[in-house]
Amino acid sequence: MKKVPTQLIETLKNNETFLLLAHNKPDGDAIGSVIVLGKTLKAMGKTVDYYIDTPVEEKLRFFSEISYFNEHLAAAYDVIVLLDCSTLDHTYQPKQLPDHKVLAVIDHHKSNEAYGDVNFIEITSATAELVYRIATALEIPLDEEMIDAVFTGISTDTGSFQFSNVTSETHEILSQLYRLKTNFAVLSKRLHSEKSYSQMKLYGKAVESMRLFADNTIAWILLTYEDISKYGGPLNITDDIANIGMNTIGVQLSATLKEVDNGEYRVSLRSKSPFNIDVSELAKAHGGGGHIRAAGFTYSGDLEVLKQELRALIEKQRSSENG
Amino acid sequence: MKKVPTQLIETLKNNETFLLLAHNKPDGDAIGSVIVLGKTLKAMGKTVDYYIDTPVEEKLRFFSEISYFNEHLAAAYDVIVLLDCSTLDHTYQPKQLPDHKVLAVIDHHKSNEAYGDVNFIEITSATAELVYRIATALEIPLDEEMIDAVFTGISTDTGSFQFSNVTSETHEILSQLYRLKTNFAVLSKRLHSEKSYSQMKLYGKAVESMRLFADNTIAWILLTYEDISKYGGPLNITDDIANIGMNTIGVQLSATLKEVDNGEYRVSLRSKSPFNIDVSELAKAHGGGGHIRAAGFTYSGDLEVLKQELRALIEKQRSSENG
Repeated sequence: MKKVPTQLIETLKNNETFLLLAHNKPDGDAIGSVIVLGKTLKAMGKTVDYYIDTPVEEKLRFFSEISYFNEHLAAAYDVIVLLDCSTLDHTYQPKQLPDHKVLAVIDHHKSNEAYGDVNFIEITSATAELVYRIATALEIPLDEEMIDAVFTGISTDTGSFQFSNVTSETHEILSQLYRLKTNFAVLSKRLHSEKSYSQMKLYGKAVESMRLFADNTIAWILLTYEDISKYGGPLNITDDIANIGMNTIGVQLSATLKEVDNGEYRVSLRSKSPFNIDVSELAKAHGGGGHIRAAGFTYSGDLEVLKQELRALIEKQRSSENG
Repeated sequence: MKKVPTQLIETLKNNETFLLLAHNKPDGDAIGSVIVLGKTLKAMGKTVDYYIDTPVEEKLRFFSEISYFNEHLAAAYDVIVLLDCSTLDHTYQPKQLPDHKVLAVIDHHKSNEAYGDVNFIEITSATAELVYRIATALEIPLDEEMIDAVFTGISTDTGSFQFSNVTSETHEILSQLYRLKTNFAVLSKRLHSEKSYSQMKLYGKAVESMRLFADNTIAWILLTYEDISKYGGPLNITDDIANIGMNTIGVQLSATLKEVDNGEYRVSLRSKSPFNIDVSELAKAHGGGGHIRAAGFTYSGDLEVLKQELRALIEKQRSSENG
């Protein structure tokens, strides 16, 4: 296994009080990483506080360590650790960041500019890989909750070991986790397959609503306000709904619209590699943001106009291909 | 890595002509395992024929080795190898099995009674794990197609590394595969997420049709003949439709009905651990078969009667719990 920076190990060993932060709307990797590092530090006899954006999503609420989140916030800490936060802006933090001697950043995002006093930035599948290596380097044995937390971080950030961020070392870590605990089937199902009845129905409604146009290269998916209300509201819209279009063979560009208020839509755009369609442009033009292949914005105009704008994106790509 | 039986290695080394068989309706593990072993033997200079149930399902058709399937069948072989076949009955085979000196069986199913002259039976996630170990023991380097074939076998038989058959060694093998090829994202998507528009729509229709009863413990899903016809026929019904009910939180028992002809239904039953509901009983009573947690049969009676029978199964379990 690759090394952990000595400076970080020394910082964790030689200080006593720690505040752990993660990004806004923490996902499985943020929560898992925070728990692994928090329990590692506690096992070393350190004082650990967590300041985390809650409530944590339902499927992650089984971690008992969550009960210590936001329990106490001191005016000063030896070290503030930011986990899985590509920038300080993405970090969920108190209005006034407590005094601290050291700001430590542990993250796996390529875009991270190492903005801490101490940094452990490496492009891995998940920040959970990094905290696993930290616990191992510190020779702190993982209890079952920590094992599940490492698994959760990696499994959720890789779409169950399917994304291109998976490496040989990712599976090496998994191989070691399975030596500590032999069965992750129930946890996997919880993280990836299970939905409430309402969530399942909204997913079905989204598939049901899908229409293709522009020679079946654009997928258009719309959840109406009525559908969303009928099945328990926006919280029941699962993330995988935005992938329905992308998982449909032949589709190059997808728009998933959720009518959050009457006539007001939250729009998620996706585009598929290797097609050269930059969806962030359109999102920015509508006051939103994102990346080349995933962007979003709020829209309350004519839906036919939006469809025309999507057609134009496809046309633009075609003419650049032929140009 | 664990060992391969010496007798099998000697059998593969000391013979010249091989016929490879797999089970009926071959899945990703059957196809992947056959290709890995076939190409391993060819790399050793052996003569290899394949007798395989075709057409292979769409998502697996990218393997170029498939073009050699069923190309030639001799009257006699030194060795016939059965891959991923728990019994001889499950094997797809010529009416008259060609003459052979040795019948070799390579399989990962617990129920396999080692019915070959030479057997390599070990409970692993997939038969692909076993053929990977064979190629490694024979020191045959894997080309890209063989790497993809091992990945396909393991990835499909584990539901993308989620099922309880995954072990530490499964991930160790994956760690080795990622050293040979760094990106399996496109293949993973092909194997697990992508659907044609019609397949996606049928999946949506199935979710849409789901109704819960018996205090939301039974899920009832029905694809009508009309729906199936509208979206390209039964071949577009993907396997994951039978899991919709099981993936709905709170459901203990699910029935998925496909109307294959007017008024004639193919019924798939599933029950969830840890509830003690044996669905094979009911399937057998209707002339079908299966296991405790997954069974099927054909039904053309009154659907309300079938619902009552499902209610009775739940009642039986409840009274045995309270008994």
